[in-house]
Amino acid sequence: MGYDSYQIMAKAVRLLSVDAIQNAASGHPGMPLGMADVATVLFSKFLRFSVNHPSWFDRDRLVLSNGHGSMLMYSIMHLVGYIGIDDIKRFRQLHSITPGHPEYGCTTGVEVTTGPLGQGLGCAVGLAIAERMFSQRFGDDLINHHTYAIVGDGCLMEGISHEAASLAGHLGLDHLIVLFDDNGISIDGSTSLATSDDVRARFSAYGWDVLEVDGHDFGEIERAIGVARESRGKPSIICCRTVIGKFMPPKAGTAAAHSWPFSPEDAQEFRNAIGWEGERFEIPEEARTLWREVRARAELECDLWMKKFAGCERAEALNEILSDGVPNGVIDELDALKNTLCETRPTEATRKSFGRVLEFLATRVYKLVGGSSDLTSSNNTKAPHMEVVSSKSFDASYVHYGVREHAMAACMNGMALHGGIIPYGGTFLVFSDYCRPAIRLSALMGLQVIYVMTHDSIGVGEDGPTHQPVEHLASLRAIPNLYVFRPADAIEVLECWEMALKLTKSPSLFALSRQSVGFNRVCYSRDNLAVKGAYIVREHEGDFRVTIFSTGSEVDVALGARDILQDQGVGTRVVSMPCWRIFDEQNADYIANLLGNGSLKVAVEAACSLGWHKYIGERGIFIGLDRFGASGKCEDLYRHFGITKENVAGTILARLRSGM
Amino acid sequence: MGYDSYQIMAKAVRLLSVDAIQNAASGHPGMPLGMADVATVLFSKFLRFSVNHPSWFDRDRLVLSNGHGSMLMYSIMHLVGYIGIDDIKRFRQLHSITPGHPEYGCTTGVEVTTGPLGQGLGCAVGLAIAERMFSQRFGDDLINHHTYAIVGDGCLMEGISHEAASLAGHLGLDHLIVLFDDNGISIDGSTSLATSDDVRARFSAYGWDVLEVDGHDFGEIERAIGVARESRGKPSIICCRTVIGKFMPPKAGTAAAHSWPFSPEDAQEFRNAIGWEGERFEIPEEARTLWREVRARAELECDLWMKKFAGCERAEALNEILSDGVPNGVIDELDALKNTLCETRPTEATRKSFGRVLEFLATRVYKLVGGSSDLTSSNNTKAPHMEVVSSKSFDASYVHYGVREHAMAACMNGMALHGGIIPYGGTFLVFSDYCRPAIRLSALMGLQVIYVMTHDSIGVGEDGPTHQPVEHLASLRAIPNLYVFRPADAIEVLECWEMALKLTKSPSLFALSRQSVGFNRVCYSRDNLAVKGAYIVREHEGDFRVTIFSTGSEVDVALGARDILQDQGVGTRVVSMPCWRIFDEQNADYIANLLGNGSLKVAVEAACSLGWHKYIGERGIFIGLDRFGASGKCEDLYRHFGITKENVAGTILARLRSGM
Repeated sequence: MGYDSYQIMAKAVRLLSVDAIQNAASGHPGMPLGMADVATVLFSKFLRFSVNHPSWFDRDRLVLSNGHGSMLMYSIMHLVGYIGIDDIKRFRQLHSITPGHPEYGCTTGVEVTTGPLGQGLGCAVGLAIAERMFSQRFGDDLINHHTYAIVGDGCLMEGISHEAASLAGHLGLDHLIVLFDDNGISIDGSTSLATSDDVRARFSAYGWDVLEVDGHDFGEIERAIGVARESRGKPSIICCRTVIGKFMPPKAGTAAAHSWPFSPEDAQEFRNAIGWEGERFEIPEEARTLWREVRARAELECDLWMKKFAGCERAEALNEILSDGVPNGVIDELDALKNTLCETRPTEATRKSFGRVLEFLATRVYKLVGGSSDLTSSNNTKAPHMEVVSSKSFDASYVHYGVREHAMAACMNGMALHGGIIPYGGTFLVFSDYCRPAIRLSALMGLQVIYVMTHDSIGVGEDGPTHQPVEHLASLRAIPNLYVFRPADAIEVLECWEMALKLTKSPSLFALSRQSVGFNRVCYSRDNLAVKGAYIVREHEGDFRVTIFSTGSEVDVALGARDILQDQGVGTRVVSMPCWRIFDEQNADYIANLLGNGSLKVAVEAACSLGWHKYIGERGIFIGLDRFGASGKCEDLYRHFGITKENVAGTILARLRSGM
Repeated sequence: MGYDSYQIMAKAVRLLSVDAIQNAASGHPGMPLGMADVATVLFSKFLRFSVNHPSWFDRDRLVLSNGHGSMLMYSIMHLVGYIGIDDIKRFRQLHSITPGHPEYGCTTGVEVTTGPLGQGLGCAVGLAIAERMFSQRFGDDLINHHTYAIVGDGCLMEGISHEAASLAGHLGLDHLIVLFDDNGISIDGSTSLATSDDVRARFSAYGWDVLEVDGHDFGEIERAIGVARESRGKPSIICCRTVIGKFMPPKAGTAAAHSWPFSPEDAQEFRNAIGWEGERFEIPEEARTLWREVRARAELECDLWMKKFAGCERAEALNEILSDGVPNGVIDELDALKNTLCETRPTEATRKSFGRVLEFLATRVYKLVGGSSDLTSSNNTKAPHMEVVSSKSFDASYVHYGVREHAMAACMNGMALHGGIIPYGGTFLVFSDYCRPAIRLSALMGLQVIYVMTHDSIGVGEDGPTHQPVEHLASLRAIPNLYVFRPADAIEVLECWEMALKLTKSPSLFALSRQSVGFNRVCYSRDNLAVKGAYIVREHEGDFRVTIFSTGSEVDVALGARDILQDQGVGTRVVSMPCWRIFDEQNADYIANLLGNGSLKVAVEAACSLGWHKYIGERGIFIGLDRFGASGKCEDLYRHFGITKENVAGTILARLRSGM
């Protein structure tokens, strides 16, 4: 492509972006107008994509980390044929496929949901790790694509940018190319109001190749991307000096360009500046032709790959790993393990049981790629045979993420998006706070990502309140589409693992105990009892007076209280609720039966009460803690906070006696 | 102090640390053993502190960001007299003043609660900003202290370290000195497993002075701290090359040293290595003497300052700003503003009302120090007269935190800890996730920090689900001691502001609407109606059939539904609940009355249902959304999700007709 052609094509991108934003009367023109030149070169000259086969496995992945610039993407996606002009006209309207920020699953061709700054960069690192893994496993004649991320000043100010960039540098991800929209402007004004970073030196310190270009000079852009693609052993960042809102006088180069609902006068001013007299949503025919050529070039590349792939003996193995679900027979084998466990009846921390099941699965489900944010032996996330990913080798399935919970979670999103990987990663439950923005995106995108959160209550003991989750179960249960599992014993751990493997459109989160728990299951059952989210772990004997609901390590407490109560003739049922969300999804009869209306309802959980009243009602009893924990021995803490079988039974008996 | 003395003193620190950990049978010896030499020099030669006057305003602030090394601090605190040997013996026991991680408010002399990695560093930046502010305002003869932070590899891997260090470099905080325990080890093993950062180059890129020492060479340490203290216009980081678990063969220099419950044999091995044959908890008498001298030196310095302060005309002004509460008369004046508002009856976004009250308060409450993470004009956090803090001037009250929500929150903790400041800071509610670990610490430490979270629901509109909080109200309400306010109109905003000013031991969080809301208050009342957390905003007429609970922007919807219902003769009460926590703290009668037993209970909130059943019971109706939002016009979204007066009224009528 000649630079004149780029000019014409970029003009079309700008025109469409402004028309859509004016039409929507809201949106973010600054970024698309600033980055149109860079994106035009990237798509025209380099990007491997296919509108015919949008999920082509060896396509390049492009992530718009500063997702508010969505019109940059939509404009080009229209010009290459992913979406129609009517979609552009419905930008930011309910039920359109052109929402305010790019949404994975909503718009074909959008690789990642972005908007929360920095997340896209973290995701891109995960995508790039996945690419290297597949490339090394299946050969670089078959898998050899790049991950591009467009990031803004805001992305690079966010903490996650440090974690992600540091990890990418460490792993030498040379197929990762970051295009930094270096316009010196953020919402409050010049970035010099808030930062004096030397971004170039910073990324060098992470072990990146750093390039710098005039982001409106097509030649410089083309050369720099070419150089970055040739980088070996290092990711690249290209700092593109751009003018935010270019061709948008007088707002160009100022914070006012960031978010601006064009008035007709503004739009006319823009058209004068860029030189175009056509109708709204009309663009130069020459631009349409050029963009069609870009698509033709891209489709050809895809077709060639498809032919190569069809004749390749590795195709079957790759297709198998890319299919949803787990290999045949794994669930049956898991059942055999369950049977064995029911014989040996281990009493151990649920984090230990988790590792036990993992050890079994990891040799059978090759898609599992694990890791921990520097708590490997505490989280039990590494099965013995697992090799560690490093810059030297990606033929491995375990990542030492370092003390980088946030990047870990974002990377896992990227891996899951890439396909062929079920990522799981561990930290302490209390530190779920550190990666919450990325957990939210797992849920929003509907990705099968498994969070392994151990040390899930005051059971942490001596490390004290900073390390004891109290509000975390509630706060995670609140996230739509996130399945929070808090299994009570080795069998429930296994059963929840089975459910997590089947939840291919949702993230799962395991909350696991540091301390040992009992073994509650009376006898082996082929059925997965936890599969309905809640079940009767011990039925009442005699008159049905009390239902105790509990989860995880406190099911022991509930069962102990039941023994005391039954001894006194008080018929008490214990319901274990490993997953609230799944229980809520059951039919009304099942729910009504388990809620045990007519009985005194009690919930026991070493956490805050928020949410429990849905099950126990306004008059139910909650035993847990609506305050922070403390530093002390695990047993001392349970006693201190009254989460003991004696206190539970005593409280229930007192209520029953009071007759209230 | 001679280097021999340092040696003896550091030995005592190590002995006590190991004895305490062995006694507790759990803990983290690696850090105290590695950093004993550095900490000894810091305390002996440089640190301004006073056991007699622990809250001496011009003391240096020392933050142990890698808080698991708490025994380093406790050992020295014992040696200088803050705590007794019995406290050391009760390390990590329930109710002791030596918890597993340092806890502010629990142990005199502990400046900050630390443990969650990186938080201490963020806090230290806030402490250092506060110091510069007071120094510039009150003169550096009166205020001129340093903030020291000891940080580990983990702290520097966390994203917050980027945000905090970048901000500190930008502001040129030359009274901030970071001591980096550069031991190359984290929990999973060598840090080279997970990071290849050039930390020195990285901090240079942030505009820091970087120094490097052998962390066991007293001379080098002493010189480096001396140099750092002389730095002008730049914060300093001293990379201290240390051996983790020094004198702990064979674990020294390995990850095994990080957390190790000493057996008697381990302890003996350590004693052999360090050369000491005394009893457990016995230390060389010479060391005790030397540490006593250190304290004497420190007290003398404090006494001199106290004398200077007593004779200083600025003392009164400083004391006033350091006292709790707000200046006399402010609450009365606020009441006058309320009266005015009740006359003008503005219908506007609650974020706008927030800015309105802020504008009023900011000229009267000089302790207020505001900021936003790059959303100043969206959050309405900057009152017109406020000057902006910069490296050139700290005589200002507004901080452009940049796109650094996490550092903003951690800095606010530091400012609140410093004293004399009520910090507030803004972002979008959905991005509360980015700063949640620091919000948790505000609550755990009991700090008066005010979070201003605007764009609090699907009312965000076109920006779509990435920017629309759904689960955030619930997840924040779950945090103990955090007061979440979601005011419904201009008057409730004012009343909640009043409450937030009075909550001197708790953080407050405002959830504020992007979109306009109505003005609900019927008439002016001197009483703060929101002061009980929930109140009847409109009483039923006729038979009491229905109670609608609501908050924030949905109170409009509830009131609209009430009109429809009352028109049909259905007596409907509307309860506005700006703060659940405060409501939960009311007496049983007040609560029972408001819960309106006997009526059909309905909750309306454009958020997830989690937690509402405590008020509406198992059979109540919830109207909101237990799923993610969407991109579209605000009104379209409310209709789409059924959060309209018509749907609320219709749902209620259907239930009433069904007779269930």
